[in-house]
Amino acid sequence: MALEDLMMLLNEKRYVEWKERIKELQIPDIAEFIDELDTKHAIIAFRLLPKEIAADVFSYLSSERQSEISMLVDEKELTEIMDDLFFDDKIDFLEEMPANVVKRILRNVSEAERRLINHFLTYPDNSAGSLMTIEFVDLKKEMTVGNALEKIRRIGRDREIVYTCYVTDAKRKLEGIVSLKDLVLASPDEKVEDIMRKEVIYVDTYDDQEDVADIFKKYDFLALPVVDQEQRLVGIITIDDIVDVIEQENTEDFQRIAAIQPSEIEYLEATPLVLARQRIVWLMILMISATVSGYIIRRFQVAIEAVVALTAFIPMLMDTGGNAGSQSSVTVIRSLALGELKLTDILKVIRKELQISILVGLGLTLVNFIRVYFIEGYDISIAFTISLTLFLTVIFAKLIGGTLPMVAKKVGLDPAIMASPLISTIVDAVSLIIYFSLAVKILHIAV
Amino acid sequence: MALEDLMMLLNEKRYVEWKERIKELQIPDIAEFIDELDTKHAIIAFRLLPKEIAADVFSYLSSERQSEISMLVDEKELTEIMDDLFFDDKIDFLEEMPANVVKRILRNVSEAERRLINHFLTYPDNSAGSLMTIEFVDLKKEMTVGNALEKIRRIGRDREIVYTCYVTDAKRKLEGIVSLKDLVLASPDEKVEDIMRKEVIYVDTYDDQEDVADIFKKYDFLALPVVDQEQRLVGIITIDDIVDVIEQENTEDFQRIAAIQPSEIEYLEATPLVLARQRIVWLMILMISATVSGYIIRRFQVAIEAVVALTAFIPMLMDTGGNAGSQSSVTVIRSLALGELKLTDILKVIRKELQISILVGLGLTLVNFIRVYFIEGYDISIAFTISLTLFLTVIFAKLIGGTLPMVAKKVGLDPAIMASPLISTIVDAVSLIIYFSLAVKILHIAV
Repeated sequence: MALEDLMMLLNEKRYVEWKERIKELQIPDIAEFIDELDTKHAIIAFRLLPKEIAADVFSYLSSERQSEISMLVDEKELTEIMDDLFFDDKIDFLEEMPANVVKRILRNVSEAERRLINHFLTYPDNSAGSLMTIEFVDLKKEMTVGNALEKIRRIGRDREIVYTCYVTDAKRKLEGIVSLKDLVLASPDEKVEDIMRKEVIYVDTYDDQEDVADIFKKYDFLALPVVDQEQRLVGIITIDDIVDVIEQENTEDFQRIAAIQPSEIEYLEATPLVLARQRIVWLMILMISATVSGYIIRRFQVAIEAVVALTAFIPMLMDTGGNAGSQSSVTVIRSLALGELKLTDILKVIRKELQISILVGLGLTLVNFIRVYFIEGYDISIAFTISLTLFLTVIFAKLIGGTLPMVAKKVGLDPAIMASPLISTIVDAVSLIIYFSLAVKILHIAV
Repeated sequence: MALEDLMMLLNEKRYVEWKERIKELQIPDIAEFIDELDTKHAIIAFRLLPKEIAADVFSYLSSERQSEISMLVDEKELTEIMDDLFFDDKIDFLEEMPANVVKRILRNVSEAERRLINHFLTYPDNSAGSLMTIEFVDLKKEMTVGNALEKIRRIGRDREIVYTCYVTDAKRKLEGIVSLKDLVLASPDEKVEDIMRKEVIYVDTYDDQEDVADIFKKYDFLALPVVDQEQRLVGIITIDDIVDVIEQENTEDFQRIAAIQPSEIEYLEATPLVLARQRIVWLMILMISATVSGYIIRRFQVAIEAVVALTAFIPMLMDTGGNAGSQSSVTVIRSLALGELKLTDILKVIRKELQISILVGLGLTLVNFIRVYFIEGYDISIAFTISLTLFLTVIFAKLIGGTLPMVAKKVGLDPAIMASPLISTIVDAVSLIIYFSLAVKILHIAV
């Protein structure tokens, strides 16, 4: 069904029909529709939503729209939305809202919930605690399967994922997990204790979200329990949030590789000043580092003055070296991120990059020699100088590109820092030294 | 529990104890353990596994190990493993195996299954068909909730995800979905028809896996139905496979950005020749493109001979331009991939990149001028030439870096192709033209 029809119904105030049609849409599509309306119509549309889906739609709206709606609805409506939100969505929402909205909301919740919210807001960004929700189903091991299913029927409607249930003792310590599938497949008289799995993988509230995502990827979980320092079950993390974490971590790596300070702000939503600040730091560092290449060129000024033709090949040598190095560094950075490569594999990487760079270097050098000597008709000694420089540069670039990310990880830095731009700067300097040193020797330039 | 203990028990042939201890591990951990053994011990360990988890462990083993085990176990054992594998894992496994292993396996399956396997093997790589599994629970709308739960109890143990059940008509056409949660929460006499959701989002067997992943990300699904051209339900795709797809698509983008031909082969498993071939194509293209920069330098050879000092700043200008451009292109490529940016936003991108580049350009130019004029004591006209070139290069780089990926997408190419290396090559040429043209004008060099 076309969104234009929905638009039209809203404009013509045909609200009964609109309410009928909206039922055919999925929640995220309704949110997308409301996000694209102007403020006035958005509020009307939001108020027309059936009560049972309003909070769900709200959790999918953009932060801006959420903030507008929170300011414009009355306190009763706001309390209703807040009550129906899943706890993790509520925390996500509060984290994004301006102080006045947060204040308005906290005024309308119970003292106990206010304390819980404040506690959740203190978990560091990117920690397991900041990702978890408190709506899980907890069972006791003495329960029968029948009792357990009854409890799920009673409380399951408000729980985010009931497909995994958690078995806790009197002190809320995690004792086991049991899936809804196992409960349904078991006979009603069996004890939960007898069908639960006791070897449970869990994380701590302060564990990093990247490690949490790795666990999900390895074990194909749908949900993962989170415990506090006293091993008490305090929440669960669900796979849908982990999908977002994976994309966020990938975005960070893309940003680091492109010499941008990582940030979660969306491009179109960020101001130019924020984006400029994100970008200028590394540009400045790299610009200043590039002076080294300048010094090398000045050091060999005599050689250049003797054979000015040498200058024409500087861009090709620098670019090829940079590209060869960035291929290796990005490959290694990615393999480390995916866990396909361990730090102990460094000798294998050196060996492999050496083999690859000899193969690639020979190919490039051959084509380059043909071009410089046969096609462009340069002197053979110049063609030889350039080709040899190219070959050595490719080998150096691939070795440094393959190993530096591993060294960075070894000393506790993010390997992605050792990506293309930094590698290029190093390779530039080295390729110029190789180039001019060879030129001086081979072309017998007196320096 | 330490893996060394397990190793020791295996070496000392204390198999009963080993079998007891292995039960405490998760399936992926057992597979990891077996992957690290030598072939002889791996076969012993695999044979010692309890029947009910053997196939599951098998699906997590590395392809090499799977292949070894398939060759070394007898036909009966092999048939048992195959029978217990989920269908999608079976297809994944067969795709990776050498021809003789595939032959051995197909010899031992029924005619009907062989036909089904061969059909699945024809789905293109990266299509929804190649990701789906056939182990879903299908219900009829006339069933009561009680009947449905009974059916799930009967067949659910062999089904990969029973958390979503699919309602089909007599011709296997998809009519609705119902979650296990809804079934458990409903009363046993209710009709499936009355609690099922009729607005179902589904994909076609030939849809691209990237689009499938986008649907999972948008709607937070755990599973998604796949239909054939006649709208018949033929399989389902589950979230755990989508997590792998997301990582695979990200890897492809990382590879494209680093000028590597995308491939799914793991770095450590690929031969140097395969990796060299993946890398040399773009290196060659970019090396040859860089000749343009060489021609520009030769064209301005007179200017260089007049003021050789100009050469010293070529690396800094080229690197900064390349880095500035790659920041913009990677940002736009990533925003497009995440769906945060649409092609219609191109004017917003141009405006934003212009604003950012002026801010960043001013900052860099200022620092650069101070360095060249005050610290290194170059002539003011040289300092001015370099600074102005830097400023204009940054603006050009960011505009071209921000827009080219969008143009690429517009004409149906992967935006990630327009990443750092290609942008750098273009920016290099343009920055050199700006540099020497300004130098000729400002320094009054006769050419």
